[in-house]
Amino acid sequence: MGEFDLIHRYFQRPVRRAALGVGDDCALLQPAAGCQIAVSSDMLVQGRHFFPDADPRQLGHKALAVNLSDLAACGAQPLAFTLALALPDADAAWLEPFAQGLLALADAHGCELVGGDTTRGPRNICITVFGEVPLSGGRSQALLRSGAQPGDDLYVSGTLGDARLALEAIGGQWKLPPDLFARAAARMHRPDPRVALGQALRGLAHAAIDISDGLLGDLGHVLTASGVGARLDATTLATLLMCQGPALDAVVPKAHQLHCVLAGGDDYELAFTAPVAARAAIDMAARACQTPVRRIGSITAETGAKVVDGQGHAIRGRWPSFDHFS
Amino acid sequence: MGEFDLIHRYFQRPVRRAALGVGDDCALLQPAAGCQIAVSSDMLVQGRHFFPDADPRQLGHKALAVNLSDLAACGAQPLAFTLALALPDADAAWLEPFAQGLLALADAHGCELVGGDTTRGPRNICITVFGEVPLSGGRSQALLRSGAQPGDDLYVSGTLGDARLALEAIGGQWKLPPDLFARAAARMHRPDPRVALGQALRGLAHAAIDISDGLLGDLGHVLTASGVGARLDATTLATLLMCQGPALDAVVPKAHQLHCVLAGGDDYELAFTAPVAARAAIDMAARACQTPVRRIGSITAETGAKVVDGQGHAIRGRWPSFDHFS
Repeated sequence: MGEFDLIHRYFQRPVRRAALGVGDDCALLQPAAGCQIAVSSDMLVQGRHFFPDADPRQLGHKALAVNLSDLAACGAQPLAFTLALALPDADAAWLEPFAQGLLALADAHGCELVGGDTTRGPRNICITVFGEVPLSGGRSQALLRSGAQPGDDLYVSGTLGDARLALEAIGGQWKLPPDLFARAAARMHRPDPRVALGQALRGLAHAAIDISDGLLGDLGHVLTASGVGARLDATTLATLLMCQGPALDAVVPKAHQLHCVLAGGDDYELAFTAPVAARAAIDMAARACQTPVRRIGSITAETGAKVVDGQGHAIRGRWPSFDHFS
Repeated sequence: MGEFDLIHRYFQRPVRRAALGVGDDCALLQPAAGCQIAVSSDMLVQGRHFFPDADPRQLGHKALAVNLSDLAACGAQPLAFTLALALPDADAAWLEPFAQGLLALADAHGCELVGGDTTRGPRNICITVFGEVPLSGGRSQALLRSGAQPGDDLYVSGTLGDARLALEAIGGQWKLPPDLFARAAARMHRPDPRVALGQALRGLAHAAIDISDGLLGDLGHVLTASGVGARLDATTLATLLMCQGPALDAVVPKAHQLHCVLAGGDDYELAFTAPVAARAAIDMAARACQTPVRRIGSITAETGAKVVDGQGHAIRGRWPSFDHFS
């Protein structure tokens, strides 16, 4: 199968919203009047972001999901994406399920594949995703990292830390009961980007971020950009693992569970801040898009992030953000 | 140097036209009213598109140039780009000149770096580039592959085949005189994307394409998309090598020179078609953007591409397009 057959067979589909899709030198997007285009790019490298024997269908899903999560974090509505793909060979047994996993998630979010590139090389998946963010009265409605204010509530969506637990179990660090492992592994393999929540938070949240590199590390970007600090409630954090409970406690120490929540990484959830007055609206927004959110603390004028126990005492720990080069 | 230091030091610069650049979950582009966004993505893999010891400054230039060439082919004005970069390590001696080569070309075209990703992995450079194409009376002014009409003149910009000659010389196939080799190698290492020409051809050309995979192969996409054929004049083609002349003839057979012109690849030039009535306007447009163009044949109702000699006799040959998977 040649390069053009490959593109045609697996990746060329009629577009509905874009003005021009796969098959020319460029794709053409027609943004709605009064909208900005949000853009994000993520590269997944074999051996680094996924195992060589990763299920290609799950990988197709995840490669787009991690990008959609960035759109979610800025409150954008998905529009289109490009896919650049390096592969050791044009293997139909890999490509077909990869394309299926990718395009099923794309369809679920109305996000069209409009272009890209294919080449031979060590397996590498680079997706660039485009979304629309409305302007209102000339002002962008995008959720940024820089808007957090002292007194804001601090929230996270969904559950945290399970992907890290699954990775550690695969690496032999823990022997999880099979049902727990299956649930944690599903969080690692099939993240569910919080696209609807991100859009629902426009006009409500002051700041938002995708916490895929770990809650504390990514929250740090919000705090720095906003010139504020945060206080996080350890009691609530301890309940954020989806796999929490006696079966997990029997295998994984509580302190390590907290570590997974604070610095696990690979969780495609949103952290966001909103004024106390918006609590009811946030609850309604979360319910409307069927995405659980939890208040885990608050934004402080004093800079830095502090994790405190039920008595308000700071808990010390080292919870580094994921970094590819350190 | 960590991932965020690396981004900050080499790639984070204030944006002028984008609403938001590097440093949040998404970049935000603010397209001009009445414009479409043209998008293209190219991935360059070490060992496939460039040698491990490639000059990083030239590589930075080329990685963006090959993308700008796609914008040129659709007549778009460059706006912004994202860079996703996999590197074996955060090596300042490589990154600094790479960023300089990349950003110098970006500045020359007013094309801002607005976002991307960095990760550890086998060296891989994936750029997605964005440009603006105006609408006129509700119709896109983008140059497409599908507009060629029988009777159109067929043109190419610049010179063709020298990059292939340089590659073959590096591989030991030919021993070129040093000055010839230097000129051919410059064509390979520092392609000059025809951005101004592409925009000048809007409203004049019927169809256009970037011929980086080889003239005949890429022209084939235009012919297929337009449902037409082409007749190419071998006498003119023979003059398209920048390095042509007795010094080259002494080393490389004429038939192989023609092969380099027709199927060399790595030439970031445009092939385009335009009605005969537009000849004077095309000449003026080319002169205005200081980009030489040559008429190399014409579009025919009969499908297929034919290369004919001075007597009108077809020349037979095999001039395959570059394909990563065949």
